[in-house]
Amino acid sequence: MKYIGIDLGGTGIKAGVVDEKGNILCKADCPTGVERGYEAVIRDMAGLCEAVVQKAGMSMDDIAAIGIGLPGIYDPATGLVPFCTNLHWHQVPVTAEMHKYLDKPVYIDNDATVAGLAESVAGVSAGAKVSIFVTLGTGVGGGIIVDGKPYSGPHGVASEIGHMITVVGGELCTCGNRGCWERYASATAIIREGRKFAQAHPDCAIAKAVGGDLDAITAKTVIDLAKSGDPDAAKLFDDYVTHLCVGLVNLINLYDPEIIALGGGVSHSGQFLLDAVNEKLPSMVFYKTMPYAKIELAKLGNDAGIIGAAMLGRK
Amino acid sequence: MKYIGIDLGGTGIKAGVVDEKGNILCKADCPTGVERGYEAVIRDMAGLCEAVVQKAGMSMDDIAAIGIGLPGIYDPATGLVPFCTNLHWHQVPVTAEMHKYLDKPVYIDNDATVAGLAESVAGVSAGAKVSIFVTLGTGVGGGIIVDGKPYSGPHGVASEIGHMITVVGGELCTCGNRGCWERYASATAIIREGRKFAQAHPDCAIAKAVGGDLDAITAKTVIDLAKSGDPDAAKLFDDYVTHLCVGLVNLINLYDPEIIALGGGVSHSGQFLLDAVNEKLPSMVFYKTMPYAKIELAKLGNDAGIIGAAMLGRK
Repeated sequence: MKYIGIDLGGTGIKAGVVDEKGNILCKADCPTGVERGYEAVIRDMAGLCEAVVQKAGMSMDDIAAIGIGLPGIYDPATGLVPFCTNLHWHQVPVTAEMHKYLDKPVYIDNDATVAGLAESVAGVSAGAKVSIFVTLGTGVGGGIIVDGKPYSGPHGVASEIGHMITVVGGELCTCGNRGCWERYASATAIIREGRKFAQAHPDCAIAKAVGGDLDAITAKTVIDLAKSGDPDAAKLFDDYVTHLCVGLVNLINLYDPEIIALGGGVSHSGQFLLDAVNEKLPSMVFYKTMPYAKIELAKLGNDAGIIGAAMLGRK
Repeated sequence: MKYIGIDLGGTGIKAGVVDEKGNILCKADCPTGVERGYEAVIRDMAGLCEAVVQKAGMSMDDIAAIGIGLPGIYDPATGLVPFCTNLHWHQVPVTAEMHKYLDKPVYIDNDATVAGLAESVAGVSAGAKVSIFVTLGTGVGGGIIVDGKPYSGPHGVASEIGHMITVVGGELCTCGNRGCWERYASATAIIREGRKFAQAHPDCAIAKAVGGDLDAITAKTVIDLAKSGDPDAAKLFDDYVTHLCVGLVNLINLYDPEIIALGGGVSHSGQFLLDAVNEKLPSMVFYKTMPYAKIELAKLGNDAGIIGAAMLGRK
C-alpha cells in the first residue's frame, strides 16, 4: 500500500504519494490561501490528494491512509486541531472536513514532529529506538520519536522543545514566558545578536558585510563571517552554540535519544555547526563516560514534511 | 506471585515482599556498610531477601522476581551499574553477584525512577498513561513513567531531570555544569538562599528563628516563616517556586504527563507548596487553553523505594 503525506504550511500545501519505506513517488503543490478560511483550504488539500494520486498513475484504492503535518497541534481526545499557527485556526475539525471528500483514515500531527518521524524512517535517524529532530529556524521546533512513533503526550502538547526555559528571566518569548530555548537557539537569535553587535560596533565586519544596512543581517551573514575567522562573529557563533548545547544536553538528560538530528536554516552551516557542537557538548553531558546521543544533520530537507506525514498512516 | 523490592541507599538497605498491586506485605532492613565493598553489600541484599520472605511466612518459590532501586544508573547493554552515587560503585555486576545467592530474575533502576513507578502503580499517579515523579530533596531526582514502564532511554541515562539547565551561567552544580535545575529547586537551594539572606540581614526573622546560628537554617525554617507570613521568607519561597515551576513547565512541554507528583523533603510543606505552584504555573505553560499535567503530592513516602523496585519485576 501507499500513503499520502500532506505538508500544510502558511503559504503552500505540498502533497506526495509515499511508499512503505518513506520514498516519495510523486509530488504536487498549491498555495494555501489562508484568508479563505479553513473549509476552502481543506477542500484544496483533498483536491491535491486526488491530483497527486492521478499524477502517480494510481487510484485512491492504492492509498491506505492520509497523513497531515501542520504548524500546530492535534488533540486526539476531541479530534480537532485546537491551534494552528500562521493559519489562524482554532478548534478546526480537519478530519471531519477531509472525510467530506475522501473516505480514508486521516492522521494529523505537528509539522516538526512529522519531520522527526520522516528522519527516523528514511533519514539520518533510521534504525534508532529513540531519536529527536530539532529544527533551528525562525523558531525552534522538534519531533521526539520513540519506538517508531511520534511522542505527542496524553494531551498532544509534548514536543514543544523550543519553549523549554533555559535562561530564567531571559529574553521575552512570543509564548509570554522569558528565556525559552528558541530565543537563543533559533536563526532569529543569531540575527538579533548580530544586529545588536553591529549597532554597537558600526565598523565591525558584520556591519561591513551588509554595507551598513543592519536590517540585512541574516544568520548566514554571521555564520559565514565566523567560518572565515572574523573574531566578533566567531564569538557570537560560539555563544549561540553554547545555548544550543544547553538545550541539547537537556534533551539528552530527559530523553536519552540515540540521535539528535539538526534541521532548519541554521543547520545549513553543516559540518561547521556539528564540529562546534561536538567540541562543546561532551563536557556538558551528565554521565561523561556513558554513551549518549550522536548529533547529526537532518538529511531529508523540505521533503521531510511530506514523508513524515505519510508515515503517520503506516501502522 | 509476589515480588521482592530492595531500596538500596547509602546508609541502609530496605527490602519488602510486595504483591501485584504494590501492597507491601512484609519489610526488613539492615545497614549498608558501604566501606566493606560491593560484594559484601550485595551478599547482605541477598540475605535480606531470604529474611524478608521467611518473615512473611513464604518461600522463594512464591517470588517471581527481585527489583532493586539504587542511587545510580543501570546500563541494560552491559548488565552493569556504571555509577552509584554515595556507594562509590563503578561498573558493578549487581545482577551477576545476586545470582550467586538467588536464582531469580533481577531488575535494576534508579531510585527516583523506581519511586516514580511506585507512585504510578499504587500512589497518586495510578492510572495515568504518562506521569513524572520529582523528588525535591538534597538534589532533584525524577522518574518518568510512560505506559506503566520507567522511561530510562536507550543508554539508561534518561530521567536526569535535576540536571536540566534552566539558568544558563547560573550556580555551579556538582555535575560540573552551571545552572542545573537542582541548584534552584532542591531543599539545598532554599537553605543556600535562606543563609545568604540571613547573612546580609542579621536582624531578619530567618536569622532570629535559628538564634543567629545560620548553619542551623533548614528549608523548613524558611518555608515555615513563609507560611506564617514573614515577607522576607515569603519572597525567598516565591523565588523558589518560580524556579520549581520553570522545570515543571519544561517537563510539561517535553513529556506532557497527566500528573507530576512532588516528593522529597520540600514536598512536606504540602498544600502550601501546591497552592503556590498552581498559582504560578498556568501563566507559564505553552498551550494555555489545553489541558495539562496536574501537580500533586506523592503519597507513598519512604515505602516508594521498596514498592517501585518490586514493580520492576512485574511484566
